[in-house]
Amino acid sequence: MESQFVDWVLATIGTDSRLEVPAGDDAAVLRPPAMRRTVLTVDMLTEGIDFLLGPKCSARAVGHKALAVSLSDLAAMGSKPEAALVAVCLPTRDGAAIGRGLLEGLQALAEKYNVIIAGGDTNAWDGPLVISVTAVGSVSPGSAWRRDGAKPGDLLLVTGALGGSLLGRHLAVEPRCHEAMFIAERLSVHAAIDISDGFSLDLSRMMAASNSGAIIRLADIPIHDDAVRSSKLAGDTRTPLEHALTDGEDFELILAMPPDAAHNLIALVGTAPISIPITIIGEVTQGAGLVAIGIDGTSAPLKPQGFLHVFDPPSP
Amino acid sequence: MESQFVDWVLATIGTDSRLEVPAGDDAAVLRPPAMRRTVLTVDMLTEGIDFLLGPKCSARAVGHKALAVSLSDLAAMGSKPEAALVAVCLPTRDGAAIGRGLLEGLQALAEKYNVIIAGGDTNAWDGPLVISVTAVGSVSPGSAWRRDGAKPGDLLLVTGALGGSLLGRHLAVEPRCHEAMFIAERLSVHAAIDISDGFSLDLSRMMAASNSGAIIRLADIPIHDDAVRSSKLAGDTRTPLEHALTDGEDFELILAMPPDAAHNLIALVGTAPISIPITIIGEVTQGAGLVAIGIDGTSAPLKPQGFLHVFDPPSP
Repeated sequence: MESQFVDWVLATIGTDSRLEVPAGDDAAVLRPPAMRRTVLTVDMLTEGIDFLLGPKCSARAVGHKALAVSLSDLAAMGSKPEAALVAVCLPTRDGAAIGRGLLEGLQALAEKYNVIIAGGDTNAWDGPLVISVTAVGSVSPGSAWRRDGAKPGDLLLVTGALGGSLLGRHLAVEPRCHEAMFIAERLSVHAAIDISDGFSLDLSRMMAASNSGAIIRLADIPIHDDAVRSSKLAGDTRTPLEHALTDGEDFELILAMPPDAAHNLIALVGTAPISIPITIIGEVTQGAGLVAIGIDGTSAPLKPQGFLHVFDPPSP
Repeated sequence: MESQFVDWVLATIGTDSRLEVPAGDDAAVLRPPAMRRTVLTVDMLTEGIDFLLGPKCSARAVGHKALAVSLSDLAAMGSKPEAALVAVCLPTRDGAAIGRGLLEGLQALAEKYNVIIAGGDTNAWDGPLVISVTAVGSVSPGSAWRRDGAKPGDLLLVTGALGGSLLGRHLAVEPRCHEAMFIAERLSVHAAIDISDGFSLDLSRMMAASNSGAIIRLADIPIHDDAVRSSKLAGDTRTPLEHALTDGEDFELILAMPPDAAHNLIALVGTAPISIPITIIGEVTQGAGLVAIGIDGTSAPLKPQGFLHVFDPPSP
């Protein structure tokens, strides 16, 4: 279901030697890198849920975010981005301007991470903007960072700083692709996940998949300035730490690594491309559940909290 | 951005030896077949534009159609289906029932064509149903059926029969994957496209991409019974032939083949898996444009007509 919009998009993007048949045919044909696995993920963003078009959120920002969140999933697998496919439903009002903005945001980020925009599909309707981006990556056989590989004794690390993304970072997502590729080439990572729904919630998912628990030292959680600012907003009753533990859309990585590898990684922070902080925040334990060690040394269960998509699974 | 719906979907589908990391992680990891290219396509369907949920269109039918149209693109490349990713935005009203129906339709078709459902993303909102399916296929290097490879002297063929899909076939799409794989393994195909927006419009796209024209013998166009029924509806002013030439969503294949290969294919019709008619309907010519030869032998330009997605490309 090609469209004039797709034709126009394709006319504005270049070709790439990785494509045997470029976008614009019924499908694109990609030369997969030799001796690599193919990594596949998709995310859909909808106006009114994931963003509100307006003075604080341009169509360009939406294009950026839509690709960035899928690239973040590729980073969380320790994989290299290769290609993306973009499906959109444009509001008929302002469809052309929105389409142009989306493409600008998509293209700028695709260039930064050397991602081919390999195709897409466009619809238009009298409704909100919807955009779905499929990202395709590559990884060496057996080396993808799964979420179920954490082992008791592994140290837990987090990239960047957490909390308060709703103040704007939830749009200006910077996927940790360069950092992930750099780490994947050099160091052992047993498990990884990206923080989309909230640190404690996504950590609990990684631990549950790994049949393990975790101890988290709250004093070591890297708290973003946005978390501090959020806690000062009128009506906000949460501390900066609570924001860091439960706010969604940080799109930072949580890694479980053997202690030697973790310390070697910390020693590399500041070396290109690791220009962001990386912090050891706890360790993997036997048993289930999360335990938080407070600043006073006391320990208590840490309840996984974050953003849960509302859905009631049907009865069988 | 995983969700409870995706968790539930994943719990209902099996694993597959082609997956090194199954769906349910940040991304799926696929073992690409050795010495094959990766074929990528995406389609988005929206309630109110592509379908109207109701007595004539169940959620199951939407799930079927959403995967079928992407598989049709893979067929149009002469490629083998491998995997699919599904992103949906469910209406909060009846979201669970709709989700269950979608999955039934997706799963049944995926099983038929041995497609892995490798992942997905789910949102919910107070809006119409939106579903986007990315299909991943494989093809031998250099052997994908492009739309720009038709050569003067090639014969033009079409699978199945055309027109009137709005009576119901536009939902019950049967992608021509088995036929395409069978043909691709045995016979030379210079160019191919699937009919999504209308026979004459999609043919004109294939000819324009190939810098060629085409002569079409109208007496040989296979007209579907649905086209005849459509032309008899109150208020319908078009002939069955006009429906066949311009209705969208047939999802049949147009092929350009060297004459020997075309005749060899016709001889195979009726052999499994070619259980549908395949008809020679014209030939590729030098120059541009489509020419129709009428039943009385007179020739006239054939205007490309069909469904065009409304979009005004922005000024640079």
